[in-house]
Amino acid sequence: MNYFEESLKLHEENIGKIEVVSKVKVETRDDLSLAYTPGVAEPCRKIYENEENVYKYTSKGNLVAVVTDGTAVLGLGDIGPKAGLPVMEGKAVLFKEFANVDAFPICLDTKDVDEIVKTVKLIAPGFGGINLEDIGAPRCFEIEERLKKELDIPVFHDDQHGTAIVVLAGVINALKVVDKKIEDLKVVVNGAGAAGTAIAKLLLSSGVKNLIACDKVGILYRGIEGVDDAKKELAKVTNPDNIKGNLAHALVGADVFIGVSAPGIVSQDMVRSMNRDAILFAMANPTPEIMPDEAKAAGAKVIGTGRSDFPNQVNNVLAFPGIFRGALDVRAKEVNEEMKIAAAYAIASMIKDEDLNEDNVIPYALDRTVAANVAEAIKKAARESGAARI
Amino acid sequence: MNYFEESLKLHEENIGKIEVVSKVKVETRDDLSLAYTPGVAEPCRKIYENEENVYKYTSKGNLVAVVTDGTAVLGLGDIGPKAGLPVMEGKAVLFKEFANVDAFPICLDTKDVDEIVKTVKLIAPGFGGINLEDIGAPRCFEIEERLKKELDIPVFHDDQHGTAIVVLAGVINALKVVDKKIEDLKVVVNGAGAAGTAIAKLLLSSGVKNLIACDKVGILYRGIEGVDDAKKELAKVTNPDNIKGNLAHALVGADVFIGVSAPGIVSQDMVRSMNRDAILFAMANPTPEIMPDEAKAAGAKVIGTGRSDFPNQVNNVLAFPGIFRGALDVRAKEVNEEMKIAAAYAIASMIKDEDLNEDNVIPYALDRTVAANVAEAIKKAARESGAARI
Repeated sequence: MNYFEESLKLHEENIGKIEVVSKVKVETRDDLSLAYTPGVAEPCRKIYENEENVYKYTSKGNLVAVVTDGTAVLGLGDIGPKAGLPVMEGKAVLFKEFANVDAFPICLDTKDVDEIVKTVKLIAPGFGGINLEDIGAPRCFEIEERLKKELDIPVFHDDQHGTAIVVLAGVINALKVVDKKIEDLKVVVNGAGAAGTAIAKLLLSSGVKNLIACDKVGILYRGIEGVDDAKKELAKVTNPDNIKGNLAHALVGADVFIGVSAPGIVSQDMVRSMNRDAILFAMANPTPEIMPDEAKAAGAKVIGTGRSDFPNQVNNVLAFPGIFRGALDVRAKEVNEEMKIAAAYAIASMIKDEDLNEDNVIPYALDRTVAANVAEAIKKAARESGAARI
Repeated sequence: MNYFEESLKLHEENIGKIEVVSKVKVETRDDLSLAYTPGVAEPCRKIYENEENVYKYTSKGNLVAVVTDGTAVLGLGDIGPKAGLPVMEGKAVLFKEFANVDAFPICLDTKDVDEIVKTVKLIAPGFGGINLEDIGAPRCFEIEERLKKELDIPVFHDDQHGTAIVVLAGVINALKVVDKKIEDLKVVVNGAGAAGTAIAKLLLSSGVKNLIACDKVGILYRGIEGVDDAKKELAKVTNPDNIKGNLAHALVGADVFIGVSAPGIVSQDMVRSMNRDAILFAMANPTPEIMPDEAKAAGAKVIGTGRSDFPNQVNNVLAFPGIFRGALDVRAKEVNEEMKIAAAYAIASMIKDEDLNEDNVIPYALDRTVAANVAEAIKKAARESGAARI
């Protein structure tokens, strides 16, 4: 199937992918009087008396804004808010299909951090959560951080944390296959953008001690110049021995390679220099940092990619629907570190021990049972960590 | 039926009234690859190449933002954006049910004119039109005016123009019943808020020569002090003889009274002072300026209200669904005066001459055939006035 051609046809035939429909009928005069005036005044009054009633009488509690500025759309880059719309609609479709979350695209005609933060705050009354999407690094870090502080609903940048959670799930299962412990690992993350930074931080929160982040300039170390502040900050919490050098140098003796970078930049020699039973998540799209067969031929044990035509696909759809389902269900004020780690373990647990092997460390992206499991884990972690409001 | 109690139950059982659903299926890996990555990149690219393609491959062209700041919700006043949400959802339901327009509530956490204008502009890329709703006067005038100038999609404040259009439709038919001509009328509009101002202006555009606007302070005249600028502007284009005095004075010899003001403020004596075969649209809610039976007993010929339990209900649902349907269908850049007048004539024409009488000058609010007729009239007028882009 020619995905591009067929997708174009699908979008044109349907003129987009989402619609806003009524949950109530409006056939009789009475129907109209209940859904609209005069009856509708009563839920309005109840919410005016007590703001929390907005969750009882409106769709807010199940509504997520999928917010983008169109600056980092797929591999296409800064194509603008209108051209990003098909992706945001796609995201809304997945939210609904996988977790019955109502999601709505908000495509912003600005790249200014202050304007984005302000706009999202001003439209927040109607939403139960904010999913930031395809906003370029390093702006995405500040936007998310500020919105998290200023809003009382969950704000979650999926390109960062969704990816990080699924990668962590893959690592958790891969470690069972190769029989290693997370605290003993040497991990190299290549590509310190939105996803790479979040992956690094989540792995550190999950017990990894020795993690080295690399970017185009090579290994990030304390004192490095010529990179943005976010990368300098990342250097402060990674690279415990403060080594310098290129990716090849970083990979010597590494147990895990995680690539969110560029096609083909990992050679078989680099894989050979890694520790025994190397684990690689090579997620450059559409061509991975190293092809799975090449990595295996060079001695790697577990390899995952972003692609559906290879085993172990890292696909965010395993994470974000269930995460928001759970967060909305307990009216979480945030998605915190504990909740993210719980989601990763929930995804990992979907593969039973007897089914676990090097080609099956991440569940099938379309497995509809994953989201419900993730939602349960999120709710539990939200309650235990104090993020849940009900 | 106790509308308030039943409405509360309806809202609670459904937890709000709208949901966002997918127009495409996502069951197989191929489905996912077309609705989302990698296929979705192709419509993104096509829109990036030519922005107009956003209408071809996304839902934008059928999506209307129902924007409020919650400052003038129903008769409840300034109850805030969250408490206004049930009304906005109700509006979205009516858009979908009556004209298959996808509408989505945007409830803004600000009353600042600049912030509202800015926010609507920034979220505009994803929408094909903007329906302003329940924003208090006089702020609503500036907000609409600025947005109309700065956006290339239709911006329409329904509380103003929707009401005005349905009233004009009622006047058009009532004139046939009493056999008078629009240019000969003396019209009094009482209540110079959002709706009253728009009604006055639309009647003037439609041929009324002698129109007097009144407000709490009495007749608006050139030189009046103690009222806001919008009312001073209105005084400039109305009241040709620049008379002064109270509502009772204004009504002497009037052919038409239009009230968007307060319950019971029109007496039978006032009606008696009007011209023969007086026409009254007494739309104060829930109790009209004068009750229909009292007005008739005092000699009025045609009387309409905002209520569904009396004849001639002025209900915006006769206007806004078809107006946006038509405007979206021709990608109108605006809803101009010609289009509004055309919509009013289209609504009026729904009542055939043989069915026309004093108790039947406005079509039944739930008549599903009205919207399609209005849409056709809007499209024609948009094309003829140069507002249509396709």
